[in-house]
Amino acid sequence: MLKKLKKQVLDANLALVRDGLAMFTWGNASGIDRERGLVVIKPSGVDYDKLTTDDLAVVTLDGEQVEGDLRPSSDTPTHLELYKAFGNIGGVVHTHSMWSVIFAQCGRDIPALGTTHADCFYGDIPCTDKMTAEQIKGEYEKETGLAIIRTFKDRGINPDEIPGANVFSHGPFSWGVSPEKAAYNAAVMEFCAKAAAMTLMLGNDVQPIMQELLDRHYLRKHGKNAYYGQD
Amino acid sequence: MLKKLKKQVLDANLALVRDGLAMFTWGNASGIDRERGLVVIKPSGVDYDKLTTDDLAVVTLDGEQVEGDLRPSSDTPTHLELYKAFGNIGGVVHTHSMWSVIFAQCGRDIPALGTTHADCFYGDIPCTDKMTAEQIKGEYEKETGLAIIRTFKDRGINPDEIPGANVFSHGPFSWGVSPEKAAYNAAVMEFCAKAAAMTLMLGNDVQPIMQELLDRHYLRKHGKNAYYGQD
Amino acid sequence: MLKKLKKQVLDANLALVRDGLAMFTWGNASGIDRERGLVVIKPSGVDYDKLTTDDLAVVTLDGEQVEGDLRPSSDTPTHLELYKAFGNIGGVVHTHSMWSVIFAQCGRDIPALGTTHADCFYGDIPCTDKMTAEQIKGEYEKETGLAIIRTFKDRGINPDEIPGANVFSHGPFSWGVSPEKAAYNAAVMEFCAKAAAMTLMLGNDVQPIMQELLDRHYLRKHGKNAYYGQD
Amino acid sequence: MLKKLKKQVLDANLALVRDGLAMFTWGNASGIDRERGLVVIKPSGVDYDKLTTDDLAVVTLDGEQVEGDLRPSSDTPTHLELYKAFGNIGGVVHTHSMWSVIFAQCGRDIPALGTTHADCFYGDIPCTDKMTAEQIKGEYEKETGLAIIRTFKDRGINPDEIPGANVFSHGPFSWGVSPEKAAYNAAVMEFCAKAAAMTLMLGNDVQPIMQELLDRHYLRKHGKNAYYGQD
Repeated sequence: MLKKLKKQVLDANLALVRDGLAMFTWGNASGIDRERGLVVIKPSGVDYDKLTTDDLAVVTLDGEQVEGDLRPSSDTPTHLELYKAFGNIGGVVHTHSMWSVIFAQCGRDIPALGTTHADCFYGDIPCTDKMTAEQIKGEYEKETGLAIIRTFKDRGINPDEIPGANVFSHGPFSWGVSPEKAAYNAAVMEFCAKAAAMTLMLGNDVQPIMQELLDRHYLRKHGKNAYYGQD
Repeated sequence: MLKKLKKQVLDANLALVRDGLAMFTWGNASGIDRERGLVVIKPSGVDYDKLTTDDLAVVTLDGEQVEGDLRPSSDTPTHLELYKAFGNIGGVVHTHSMWSVIFAQCGRDIPALGTTHADCFYGDIPCTDKMTAEQIKGEYEKETGLAIIRTFKDRGINPDEIPGANVFSHGPFSWGVSPEKAAYNAAVMEFCAKAAAMTLMLGNDVQPIMQELLDRHYLRKHGKNAYYGQD
Repeated sequence: MLKKLKKQVLDANLALVRDGLAMFTWGNASGIDRERGLVVIKPSGVDYDKLTTDDLAVVTLDGEQVEGDLRPSSDTPTHLELYKAFGNIGGVVHTHSMWSVIFAQCGRDIPALGTTHADCFYGDIPCTDKMTAEQIKGEYEKETGLAIIRTFKDRGINPDEIPGANVFSHGPFSWGVSPEKAAYNAAVMEFCAKAAAMTLMLGNDVQPIMQELLDRHYLRKHGKNAYYGQD
Repeated sequence: MLKKLKKQVLDANLALVRDGLAMFTWGNASGIDRERGLVVIKPSGVDYDKLTTDDLAVVTLDGEQVEGDLRPSSDTPTHLELYKAFGNIGGVVHTHSMWSVIFAQCGRDIPALGTTHADCFYGDIPCTDKMTAEQIKGEYEKETGLAIIRTFKDRGINPDEIPGANVFSHGPFSWGVSPEKAAYNAAVMEFCAKAAAMTLMLGNDVQPIMQELLDRHYLRKHGKNAYYGQD
């Protein structure tokens, strides 16, 4: 069942290590089969170099495990909330990558300062508000997802255009039309976080990227008038 | 056609990955055959590890594609403007390398602070002015080239002596007598950008390199009295 | 004798190099057999790539060498003090990893600023006070261990919950239930040190992680209600 | 002739690349046979991956080339001055390693802030004064050596105890009893430069290492009472 999706999810998990986004067992990637309503996700606390498609857990959108001998990632409820709220996404990734974590620890958005950012994220990458003590003590991982969703709703951000967010004091989640794209967006977010951090430290009076330049770069890679790449 | 040049352009593109200047498909190198007026360039959005000489696109200086099944890099018009304006160059490289991007996001020249810089760049590496909304909405990639050329003209900089520039909010372009040299200059520019950024952050009252030392180092590697290397 | 422990100690030493925590011969890992009261430790000044289990030294808790042709690490007395004072630990690691050293050179605790830290360390990672001239001139390596132990006692820190410390002007020691866990904690401490340093440099008015979030993350991985991983 | 020394010099040159101290052809290592008064040094501008012992140049202390088809490093006169002035050294290394260069560009000593530094350098690593226009326009590479020597003399520094220096606006030279030790000292200097830079940026009111701790660490690795390692 879900052979192709499992391969995609495995590859996305391994991409996190290859791209330097995850050490040890930190980080997890998942993918969804929208028709069947099933999510494939990394098991909790398993080393990447031992991971096979057979180790992956399959859960319903309600969190019921329907396949796999290993317990799914403890962050599974966060992934499920994102799949339920963001209807166009096919993959979700969570890591503790260094520079994204640094912005999360500052409780600060990753500002759109250049075209590298604009090529992938159509504006600032938001950081959620602090969660309340009740949310943290309650269904914490589910509340983490809800905190992200609330941030996008309250600030009027389109998750298809800004495919990532930081959770306050914690770290980055990203998503995309596929597990591969979610992992790609995690890597771009990490690059942009480092570039933004050092720009803010080096520069005086750093300005956001001009709206026209943000438009130009985002739209040359996305939407019906895109002209980057071969398709 | 252009077999040797294609090999040089492929090698220069692969050097960008090897030297840590490009992730994913970001970055492109090209080379020109001045006699035939033909430019060989990386196709748009193709992975470096799958790239072969057969994938490379060949275009005229007017941008007409005369060979290759894949669309040329979306940055091709920038390369073409540089070839037309800077008559001695044989190769052009564009990347989003981290530390050059950081200076571009600051909108700040990379100052000549030491001999590593002087060995390759005969003065500060300029950052262009902000482009106007009209330029960005118009023939953007062509305008990017014109912004670089204008910067060199207005500030009286010789592109043979300063073989690189940053585009405001975007990132670095570099060039050289060959694609190999253009890629080399991209790597040196990136090293100097990091060293300059950290020098500016660490130092108090950082001074530019003495003119005599700039002269000495640049001229021991360039020009008729050069005495570095084996030729 | 102690074959299994020697293999664990060798692996932990090699992990220090693999995880980028040790250059040259800097750093050492040890493990203890509590029943026999014997400690296995890296020999002093031997290259990691030549290290075999036969090279490891075996010493009693009083520092008497009972096996091995090579002199044990000069830091052995520090390890021994930690084993004697911290009754639950099975492994100790010392490195000069970059970012932990930076906090040691600042004489500053590594503050708990995010969940990555909380997943492994249940609060700030302390830096010892300056040692006195007498302590440095006396049994220096033993005094180094005593300085760590005194710090935990005076500040009421549980070494099982905060499995690491920095020694002022020097660098990190870490420990755990096994040599492998001690090496793991060294790597996490290094990651957290870098993330904390850059957070403090980037952020204005950086706040410690909320107590509830610290509790949640630490306790989802530790103690009887842990739900991370497969056990 | 000088077969063994040539092998040592080749290995020291390759160590510069392995340890991340040199990109492209930047950097050079040499070694001296004191009895014969001959120095073996890297040829100028040759790639490290093509370098063989046959490519190495042999020169007298007066700079006369007595073996090798390739021109010796353009920095040869600097090496020769150091060999002539510092009678106990057997190897010299020059690189443009990142963090040492950053201190050189700041014109600032690398301060002794911790035990990693003290293990190898018995005090601050000095940066020379600015050279004069006359010195730069004259026998520049020889003057570079003289600037280092003058710094050690004027400040009463023992080159056997502080086996390295930065040249203002330029970068590091290091030395040691052998080419291998000179390359080792270059790597330690680079590590200490990075750690010192980040300590100075992170810390408030950073203090030099206590004299007693500097003594303890330096002397446990050097001199007749050394007790680190196996000899």
